Amino acid sequence: MTAAQLSVAFFLQMFFILAVCRLVGMAARKIGQPQVVGEMIAGVLMGPSLFGLVWPRAQQFLFPPDSLEVLYVGAQLGVGLYMFIVGIEFKTDLFRSRARSAAAVSLAGILVPFLLGAALALWLIRVPGLIAESVDLHEAMLFMGASMAITAFPMLARIIYERGLTGTALGTLALAAGAIDDAVAWCVLAVVLASFGGGWGGAALAIGGGAAYAVIITLLGRRALAPLGTAAERHGDITPSVLAIVLMLFMFAAWGMDAIGIHAVFGGFLLGTAMPRGQFAAQLRRQLEPFAVVFLLPMFFTYSGLNTRLDMVNTWELLLIALVALAAAIGGKGVACWAAARLTGEDNRTALAVGTLMNARGLMELIILNIGLSKGVIGLPLFSIMVLMAIVTTLMASPLFELVYGRHARAAGTLHKIE
Amino acid sequence: MTAAQLSVAFFLQMFFILAVCRLVGMAARKIGQPQVVGEMIAGVLMGPSLFGLVWPRAQQFLFPPDSLEVLYVGAQLGVGLYMFIVGIEFKTDLFRSRARSAAAVSLAGILVPFLLGAALALWLIRVPGLIAESVDLHEAMLFMGASMAITAFPMLARIIYERGLTGTALGTLALAAGAIDDAVAWCVLAVVLASFGGGWGGAALAIGGGAAYAVIITLLGRRALAPLGTAAERHGDITPSVLAIVLMLFMFAAWGMDAIGIHAVFGGFLLGTAMPRGQFAAQLRRQLEPFAVVFLLPMFFTYSGLNTRLDMVNTWELLLIALVALAAAIGGKGVACWAAARLTGEDNRTALAVGTLMNARGLMELIILNIGLSKGVIGLPLFSIMVLMAIVTTLMASPLFELVYGRHARAAGTLHKIE
Repeated sequence: MTAAQLSVAFFLQMFFILAVCRLVGMAARKIGQPQVVGEMIAGVLMGPSLFGLVWPRAQQFLFPPDSLEVLYVGAQLGVGLYMFIVGIEFKTDLFRSRARSAAAVSLAGILVPFLLGAALALWLIRVPGLIAESVDLHEAMLFMGASMAITAFPMLARIIYERGLTGTALGTLALAAGAIDDAVAWCVLAVVLASFGGGWGGAALAIGGGAAYAVIITLLGRRALAPLGTAAERHGDITPSVLAIVLMLFMFAAWGMDAIGIHAVFGGFLLGTAMPRGQFAAQLRRQLEPFAVVFLLPMFFTYSGLNTRLDMVNTWELLLIALVALAAAIGGKGVACWAAARLTGEDNRTALAVGTLMNARGLMELIILNIGLSKGVIGLPLFSIMVLMAIVTTLMASPLFELVYGRHARAAGTLHKIE
Repeated sequence: MTAAQLSVAFFLQMFFILAVCRLVGMAARKIGQPQVVGEMIAGVLMGPSLFGLVWPRAQQFLFPPDSLEVLYVGAQLGVGLYMFIVGIEFKTDLFRSRARSAAAVSLAGILVPFLLGAALALWLIRVPGLIAESVDLHEAMLFMGASMAITAFPMLARIIYERGLTGTALGTLALAAGAIDDAVAWCVLAVVLASFGGGWGGAALAIGGGAAYAVIITLLGRRALAPLGTAAERHGDITPSVLAIVLMLFMFAAWGMDAIGIHAVFGGFLLGTAMPRGQFAAQLRRQLEPFAVVFLLPMFFTYSGLNTRLDMVNTWELLLIALVALAAAIGGKGVACWAAARLTGEDNRTALAVGTLMNARGLMELIILNIGLSKGVIGLPLFSIMVLMAIVTTLMASPLFELVYGRHARAAGTLHKIE
């Protein structure tokens, strides 16, 4: 396909993607689910698991092989910018007020699913096609552990915020624990990816470079970026020049982390945490979020869905693995977090709600799985199994939250309604 | 290159593009030129005319051939969205208050450059490599006529708006004449493109389809889209769902116009003119413009610049053609508009200012030239010559405006300062 043909195909493809994501998203919201659940499912429906199965020619026409590269680049930009926005909203001062239970919940929420995931890898590595042959057992254990330990932190934060729970015991606890968990899981993933960097030299570059970047951003980032905030406050809004500088920094960070063998999303996220807060953060989000979330993220869900082959989960053993993975995910995260919260003295409702919220994997899980797939750690069947796990744990969150916490809190008048 | 390598290259490329566009743009503004002039020049500097000439290996590294498709798709999306935003801001009720002189100026501003451009085609078609051999003389005349008659309408509108001239004689006149001129020039271009549609069937599809789309949008669009405005007003802002619907419509319109053989930008522009006005338009612009203008448009300027081969303008004849084309552009547009304004009774300063503003070609010219190049109407040398003309006429506008109008108006206190 020529560039001009690609661009025509792109417009039609995006029309289709936006339409399907919106429709399934609307249907999801009708039954009390967040938009993101709808888009996760929409991506799978557009892939070989449904659309490609029932009408392969139409699917080939809408997603010709040549067009997938553009979709991939758009998807990477989308998740990179999304993680940047998550970084902008990341608050590091949450931990203090509820330090003890937050530490317990986050430790349980990391350790138990990590151990279960690592144990699962012992089984998975013996089933052909699930984990790449070039992957060592300890790498497989690290990757499966990290991917089990992920929490849909941005979704959790949005639920807490939208429901007006920010200042409550539940809100503080869930936000702090979710933030710690995701930070740790991403660090483990970074180590896994670094170890794929082609021998010791590659691993040293990845770990050293990633650590150096994290240290520089954490120590100097805030101060170095402060002038951007001052400039935005002087003008009353973020000028095109300031936005261009922010995007430049983002591109450089994303490229750097990609180039040393980690992943663009780390660059974006860490840069986001160092951005000036207050007015500046709000305005930056307002300028970037609509396009990133409404336009670019559906490209990611679609690309991810095109790689999801539920038809490959076609033996009793694979089905069993899917069920065990799901059980490990729920038991390791949801149950462990509930237990940890109870043991540190939270009441049962709060503990149940924390477990429910922490258990949702959401978009974050899809990001880590796609990284694993593209770096050749896991194969398509395992990818599909884990996507299923991500969707189910995310689907569970809203009704369970309503059941264990929402209806009581609403009766007590302490829960905001959301549209 | 694999998709993953492309995405790494993309981040680095965008860092470079954003940096160069911002730096040259800042330099341009230092000398009183608008940002767009800087970005036009930045694009050319990144291409084979400078960067590729002095450091070909670095240029190849930053712009590997495989990466150009992504750049092209982003560029098309950028100009499509930009024209959509121009459409959103397009006001059709300007003409009445100054109908006589507006009609005269716009007629002169179309007819004279069109005739000069068409006449120039008589010469160009005999010089090898300038116009494709498959192009008939009358098609070449139409294309050269249309591309001479273009006005940088969005830039003109922005200057008028930023300087607080919206309600003045000059403002009304220039906006009305610029709008008519661009509308007519784009119609001519649509006819030219339609005639390339592969025989009579293709031409009929393009002309018929384009006309049908224009009629439907004009007659039914406003009413059909009104509910979007109501929804946005009810929520106080454009929700992600409404934004998604708008983007879906945009994708469909862009795809449709591309698919029938015209061009995505028409789809975007016409759709924009039918969007609800007021609050809705302002919010939509606020959500789309930052990303489209700061991120996507630089991709267009770069892609255009990568095709600009000033080194190909290397014979005395080509140099002469460049000078004649420039003279025809300035004489046909600037001088003719000034004369028409004078003849319909405007004072000399207003007439000079109108001529100056109408003469700038800006981004609009680059869009039409890139369409001509990608559809195989013109070759690289003529493309480069016309890019040069676009840059020079755009560069002229600000200092000339200051000379003939700005300093007097500022002395009289009727001109806003802009930062």
